[in-house]
Amino acid sequence: MSYNLLKGKRGIVFGALNEHSIAWKVAERAVEEGAEIVLTNTPISLRMGDINRLAERCNAPVIAADATSVEDLESLVDKAMEHFGGKIDFVLHSVGMSPNVRKNIPYQQLNYTFLDKTLDISAISFHKLMQVLYSKSAMNEWGSIVALTYMAAQRTFVGYGDMADAKALLESVARSFGAIFGRDHKVRVNTVSQSPTATTAGKGIAGMGGMLDFAEAMSPLGNATAEDCADYCVTLFSDLTRKVTMQNLYHDGGFSNMGLSEAVYNGFLKGAKEE
Amino acid sequence: MSYNLLKGKRGIVFGALNEHSIAWKVAERAVEEGAEIVLTNTPISLRMGDINRLAERCNAPVIAADATSVEDLESLVDKAMEHFGGKIDFVLHSVGMSPNVRKNIPYQQLNYTFLDKTLDISAISFHKLMQVLYSKSAMNEWGSIVALTYMAAQRTFVGYGDMADAKALLESVARSFGAIFGRDHKVRVNTVSQSPTATTAGKGIAGMGGMLDFAEAMSPLGNATAEDCADYCVTLFSDLTRKVTMQNLYHDGGFSNMGLSEAVYNGFLKGAKEE
Amino acid sequence: MSYNLLKGKRGIVFGALNEHSIAWKVAERAVEEGAEIVLTNTPISLRMGDINRLAERCNAPVIAADATSVEDLESLVDKAMEHFGGKIDFVLHSVGMSPNVRKNIPYQQLNYTFLDKTLDISAISFHKLMQVLYSKSAMNEWGSIVALTYMAAQRTFVGYGDMADAKALLESVARSFGAIFGRDHKVRVNTVSQSPTATTAGKGIAGMGGMLDFAEAMSPLGNATAEDCADYCVTLFSDLTRKVTMQNLYHDGGFSNMGLSEAVYNGFLKGAKEE
Amino acid sequence: MSYNLLKGKRGIVFGALNEHSIAWKVAERAVEEGAEIVLTNTPISLRMGDINRLAERCNAPVIAADATSVEDLESLVDKAMEHFGGKIDFVLHSVGMSPNVRKNIPYQQLNYTFLDKTLDISAISFHKLMQVLYSKSAMNEWGSIVALTYMAAQRTFVGYGDMADAKALLESVARSFGAIFGRDHKVRVNTVSQSPTATTAGKGIAGMGGMLDFAEAMSPLGNATAEDCADYCVTLFSDLTRKVTMQNLYHDGGFSNMGLSEAVYNGFLKGAKEE
Repeated sequence: MSYNLLKGKRGIVFGALNEHSIAWKVAERAVEEGAEIVLTNTPISLRMGDINRLAERCNAPVIAADATSVEDLESLVDKAMEHFGGKIDFVLHSVGMSPNVRKNIPYQQLNYTFLDKTLDISAISFHKLMQVLYSKSAMNEWGSIVALTYMAAQRTFVGYGDMADAKALLESVARSFGAIFGRDHKVRVNTVSQSPTATTAGKGIAGMGGMLDFAEAMSPLGNATAEDCADYCVTLFSDLTRKVTMQNLYHDGGFSNMGLSEAVYNGFLKGAKEE
Repeated sequence: MSYNLLKGKRGIVFGALNEHSIAWKVAERAVEEGAEIVLTNTPISLRMGDINRLAERCNAPVIAADATSVEDLESLVDKAMEHFGGKIDFVLHSVGMSPNVRKNIPYQQLNYTFLDKTLDISAISFHKLMQVLYSKSAMNEWGSIVALTYMAAQRTFVGYGDMADAKALLESVARSFGAIFGRDHKVRVNTVSQSPTATTAGKGIAGMGGMLDFAEAMSPLGNATAEDCADYCVTLFSDLTRKVTMQNLYHDGGFSNMGLSEAVYNGFLKGAKEE
Repeated sequence: MSYNLLKGKRGIVFGALNEHSIAWKVAERAVEEGAEIVLTNTPISLRMGDINRLAERCNAPVIAADATSVEDLESLVDKAMEHFGGKIDFVLHSVGMSPNVRKNIPYQQLNYTFLDKTLDISAISFHKLMQVLYSKSAMNEWGSIVALTYMAAQRTFVGYGDMADAKALLESVARSFGAIFGRDHKVRVNTVSQSPTATTAGKGIAGMGGMLDFAEAMSPLGNATAEDCADYCVTLFSDLTRKVTMQNLYHDGGFSNMGLSEAVYNGFLKGAKEE
Repeated sequence: MSYNLLKGKRGIVFGALNEHSIAWKVAERAVEEGAEIVLTNTPISLRMGDINRLAERCNAPVIAADATSVEDLESLVDKAMEHFGGKIDFVLHSVGMSPNVRKNIPYQQLNYTFLDKTLDISAISFHKLMQVLYSKSAMNEWGSIVALTYMAAQRTFVGYGDMADAKALLESVARSFGAIFGRDHKVRVNTVSQSPTATTAGKGIAGMGGMLDFAEAMSPLGNATAEDCADYCVTLFSDLTRKVTMQNLYHDGGFSNMGLSEAVYNGFLKGAKEE
């Protein structure tokens, strides 16, 4: 189903690895809604994933870029504008990785070289991207920039490790840069705080299956899926949300404002009785 | 411009008084986007305002209802379902009034009979409305209920008086009922926390003009207008935001996450120097 | 153990029913820390509870007052000032009751006469109390007013019903009046958002036992007890926290900023497997 | 005035440069309240500042340590425990610096090498400190760790630049490590979000004078001073706040929950009229 919500709009989508990726779904939905897009990911992700299949379906060029490299980002933005023959209307930043989490290093034993990488890949990359877009005046007025995040930025989830801190940093960057990008170029910047999602990246977190079940039981509407997230991102890229900026938007079936649901209560009590 | 985002959907819109009302703009935009609607307001507002002009334009029946009366709300919902020949997909609650604020009674000298009215009209009416919709199973699955609110629920604004408390109560009702409406009927409930807006109701607040200027100077994208709000509400009624619930969504050009902008800083400093 | 933190200070303590009450513990600790106090509760609570035992121990007069009656509050404040021979330094508001919750009426079937009572007793009483204190200039400069609240004001807990909305209203009243009381009389106003606590009032909530276990498992430091809360309130009444105002202060062993602990995760998963 | 609130307690205080430093005041007050302390700062700060004067007054050893160096922190903690002849009860982290802000580099033109330094000094240092304390089991049960922060972590203040992001990261680290330190060692971790303060570090921020005036006009109780902050930290180190953890505690005269005060409104309007 298409509403042509993004007709005539052009965007860059970071982070589509395979069909489980949220970014993959966003790319598909954006194109369905009439947008032209450019896909990007790191060279290694391009090799490992299926992005060419997506590129074909979306009629989109794939441009390799390491999101931690200002040079790569400059080249990406130049090429995208050249491809589009004009400025950019929307960007999705779906980039995050923690070597500490991947290697199951506990948060109280962090490797600080890895922490620097976590922050650089998952948060500072977002600043670099916006600094490049800003300095090149690459965004159209009333353009929209969205980064994906997770509620671990506000509350501690066992196993989420230093990615929690990276997401807090990412959300702060969105606010800080949003104030400037809004004031100077009328561009809005928001983060979408998504339910835990069974992506390839998500599966890298120990206990992710249990977290999904817990969140499902806690959320009145159940977990938001990658497809749901794509729909939501489409509204944020559209002209109908022009005055929403510097926000962290929970897209989670209500999880964020639940203290205790019946399903969690009952599940927990049953488990407690077994002990 | 129309995307047909609400094609086939049916909604009830509370609170359209005249063409300055946010609800008026929401009604117009919802119909442009393909919705059928029913308009409602109190009998006195129907007499004072221009709603018949809106009703004609929207091809919508007008049904009088006092939102503090469960009976009136039951009758309204029954008539709306009869008119639609089926259940309801979306509702806008744009209802609020404080006799204390109207009469310029300071917050430290509240008249408690008036406070009860403020709360009943501005917040409890939202619970009553949802209780009626719930008990009649009047909402379609994945329906959407939105109430308009203001950031005074979180932070104190001089002159906003007991409406601040009413909005805090309203937002709590949205969360509390949202948890149940989501779990049982897959209906989402959110509040939109809008920039100060030059509606007839807004003009009733002492110093509203100055507040608008202050908010405009603080917000990177400037204040959100009633038209902007209508666009945003359309996305919240659409099928693209199905997993957003129990949220208070700031629609304010970034005001809510600003601490101090250059424009406010400069204006304030200049004023301070004059002293 | 005493630090004489409240030496020379005079306070009014609302809501001590019996030795399980948080207010009871606060009264005891305040007196241990050198304060003089006046105890108050409704006439019926005075009959049902053990307050005379506390009054003796604290060498404190007991003054009956219905916190929803402005007249009673005026008389209470007059008598307290007469007893002290001067103004008041601190007040604890520990007052709350929902007939809907008591009678197990579900939130989607609220009795609105009961809701009015819930709000009047649990939230509006706090405004009335402060309005009386303000209008009589009954508080000393740098005085401190604290009300007890619960996190259901922010997130939905099954079974907490309309008390959630009352607490949201209470917290808003604290902010709104705090802005005025601070500006005009240098008095601070805060709410303490306490762990679920096994008081007589708490036991009235269906499933309270399970909620205590859940919160205990979620909180890194475990639930805060009534004794812990009394200690914390003492710091808020002391001269060491003079610039803390309009805050909602979580006193909960960390619960409020936890998303998922190992203990909850394991308990929940075990329960889930049984199904 | 002393209450002996910290009698028998031992703490490490980071960041006392000169008598304007908040850490300086905390050190003095902690000792007044009966604590033994160890002072620490970077070698260069030790040379530039007056710490020896403080050390004498507090009868405290000064141990040089670069808070970004795990080795230095390990040595510091070892020496402190040796000096105390036992474990540590409290720690104050008052460490922060942004080369970007110092050199007036706009946020949209960040130098990323400088950003890494900002984050390392101002936020990651706090993780390193806690990781060292944790791995050495250097904290007593019910110990208390506090870091100083600023509300720019939540809202954007012109001129605060990448320090806003560093503070957001710092606060996230406090939550994340607080969950573990609480669960495993019963140690609490909080951040105090202080009014803008006229310290030597504060003065480095362009327009700090105006920010102080703005915050003073917005806050019902006026800005919290360094002395006020020291008093507040004493309560957080004491045994009276044992169940407060993972919190960001605003200590700001009410600023954080103000939307618009009369004084700001009037000052701003006057300035606006001049244009």
